[in-house]
Amino acid sequence: MPDAGPATEAKLAAAGPPPVFRRLVIVGAGLIGSSVARIAHERGRPGGDLAAEVIVTDSSPEVLARVAVLGFADGIEADAGRAVQGADCVMLCAPVGAYAGIAAAIAPHLAPGTVVTDVGSTKVSVIRDVAPLLPAGVRFIPAHPLAGTEYSGPDAGFATLFQGRWCLLSPPAGADPAAVAQVAELWRRMGSMVETMEPTHHDRVMAIVSHLPHLIAFTICGTADDLEGGNGDDATRAEVLKFAASGFRDFTRIAASDPVMWRDVFLNNRDALLEMLARFTEDAQAMARAVRWGDGAYIEDRIKRGRAIRQGLIELKQA
Amino acid sequence: MPDAGPATEAKLAAAGPPPVFRRLVIVGAGLIGSSVARIAHERGRPGGDLAAEVIVTDSSPEVLARVAVLGFADGIEADAGRAVQGADCVMLCAPVGAYAGIAAAIAPHLAPGTVVTDVGSTKVSVIRDVAPLLPAGVRFIPAHPLAGTEYSGPDAGFATLFQGRWCLLSPPAGADPAAVAQVAELWRRMGSMVETMEPTHHDRVMAIVSHLPHLIAFTICGTADDLEGGNGDDATRAEVLKFAASGFRDFTRIAASDPVMWRDVFLNNRDALLEMLARFTEDAQAMARAVRWGDGAYIEDRIKRGRAIRQGLIELKQA
Repeated sequence: MPDAGPATEAKLAAAGPPPVFRRLVIVGAGLIGSSVARIAHERGRPGGDLAAEVIVTDSSPEVLARVAVLGFADGIEADAGRAVQGADCVMLCAPVGAYAGIAAAIAPHLAPGTVVTDVGSTKVSVIRDVAPLLPAGVRFIPAHPLAGTEYSGPDAGFATLFQGRWCLLSPPAGADPAAVAQVAELWRRMGSMVETMEPTHHDRVMAIVSHLPHLIAFTICGTADDLEGGNGDDATRAEVLKFAASGFRDFTRIAASDPVMWRDVFLNNRDALLEMLARFTEDAQAMARAVRWGDGAYIEDRIKRGRAIRQGLIELKQA
Repeated sequence: MPDAGPATEAKLAAAGPPPVFRRLVIVGAGLIGSSVARIAHERGRPGGDLAAEVIVTDSSPEVLARVAVLGFADGIEADAGRAVQGADCVMLCAPVGAYAGIAAAIAPHLAPGTVVTDVGSTKVSVIRDVAPLLPAGVRFIPAHPLAGTEYSGPDAGFATLFQGRWCLLSPPAGADPAAVAQVAELWRRMGSMVETMEPTHHDRVMAIVSHLPHLIAFTICGTADDLEGGNGDDATRAEVLKFAASGFRDFTRIAASDPVMWRDVFLNNRDALLEMLARFTEDAQAMARAVRWGDGAYIEDRIKRGRAIRQGLIELKQA
């Protein structure tokens, strides 16, 4: 029999570095939360390089039952307060409108030194809602992975969701650099490119690249849905569906996203979103005016500017 | 040596049915016109089942030079009037704003019985601009293939562009059924599903499924492009491009379409487009009001209606 020593050593080396966190608690097992849990799980049990142990909690008993079936959690706990006991990292993966309630529920159970992070699409509201409720010594490092699909729930998650995607960290002023480094390392190990962004700036950038496009997509789908039963000359719903490939379809994919999540995003990035919508509306009204009065040069110029943005994406190979 | 008779017969049978038209003249060698010419050409020269002969004319000498290099025309003619001499079908494939000028130029040269058709995205304006200029005996059958890409010009066309796509015919009242059948057969042989639609209704359906989505896409790209240099807190153009995958990107593909073509579409479907834009704007403003006043139930309801439309597309396997 050969000596077991070197073989065990090789096995440990193959298992990779020690986990970033000992006990990671995921609050909310939707698309994002269940993807994080899946990745942690796929990296090897027991062990893995993300977290030695992954506990999942969710306010919905149905979701928790489904998580049990899917088998990507080391522990399932219905009570968020009990779930976070003994955690060294708690990741909020619920709609941002639920954060204040969750923070109040878990705060008494958080050990000093615990890293609390999140995955929400807004950052100013998250810091406003969560930070004041956390006990001294708990380190709050908000994060936002720019990843998702039009599907939601624990079945929708998958292990490659974050690969090659950005994750933005928005640590509040004075945040512990060691905790920032841990959260950054967690996302890098999940395949993300990590960048830090000041919370207010984050919310303004997201208002134009994500929140306004979603609001517009939801709106035009609703406008189309309202047509039926209006003017007899109008397109029917059946016609909208039949001829959707003519342009409309491109707007519908993102309009299939989770309603509660997006409701909360809109309500929690109100000022930046309303400002971007106001700018867009002014621009759309200027286009309308040019159409009404036959100002072809103006229309052509605006279309050309839109094309320039598309060209930029093609050059960045992001189109 | 075997008898040539049966072999020749077999060859003729393999070549398929006789062509729909003897001499097809394509006016404008952009994405659509060059695709039609390519298909006619691929079906066999001499012969083929679309047209025995395809002549291409274009107002741009550069485009015609390129058509000569690409080799999908049996004849190239810079003067539209000369090009249509001897034609039994003339297909207008230029931006709809150019139709009146083209119709005036070709009218004196059209033989009685010639079928004039088109591929424009508006139908009321096309009938208004073209029909009065055509000599008696010329049969005008407007058509609109719902196909395209974000690319334009003679190099952008390809032979499978119309396969499985709709082509809508909008014959004016009293149009010759034989000519309608010929144009329908032409599109069917190019792989399209053909349907007839009353011109006013066509323009209203297209306003919501195609023209408004394009106007919105061009507009939001312009809004994003304007950000730079504004408020110091704003997203920069570089950030918009970097994080476009968060939703914005879905709007940019159709925003890359041809500026002159779309300028003309907007100007020539003015009333229906402005009405759809007005409805959309009202709906967007109602969303803005709900965001401002925290009306979560309203927002959630509107998002759910958008999802229903998407669900309809998935059920139709068009998503």
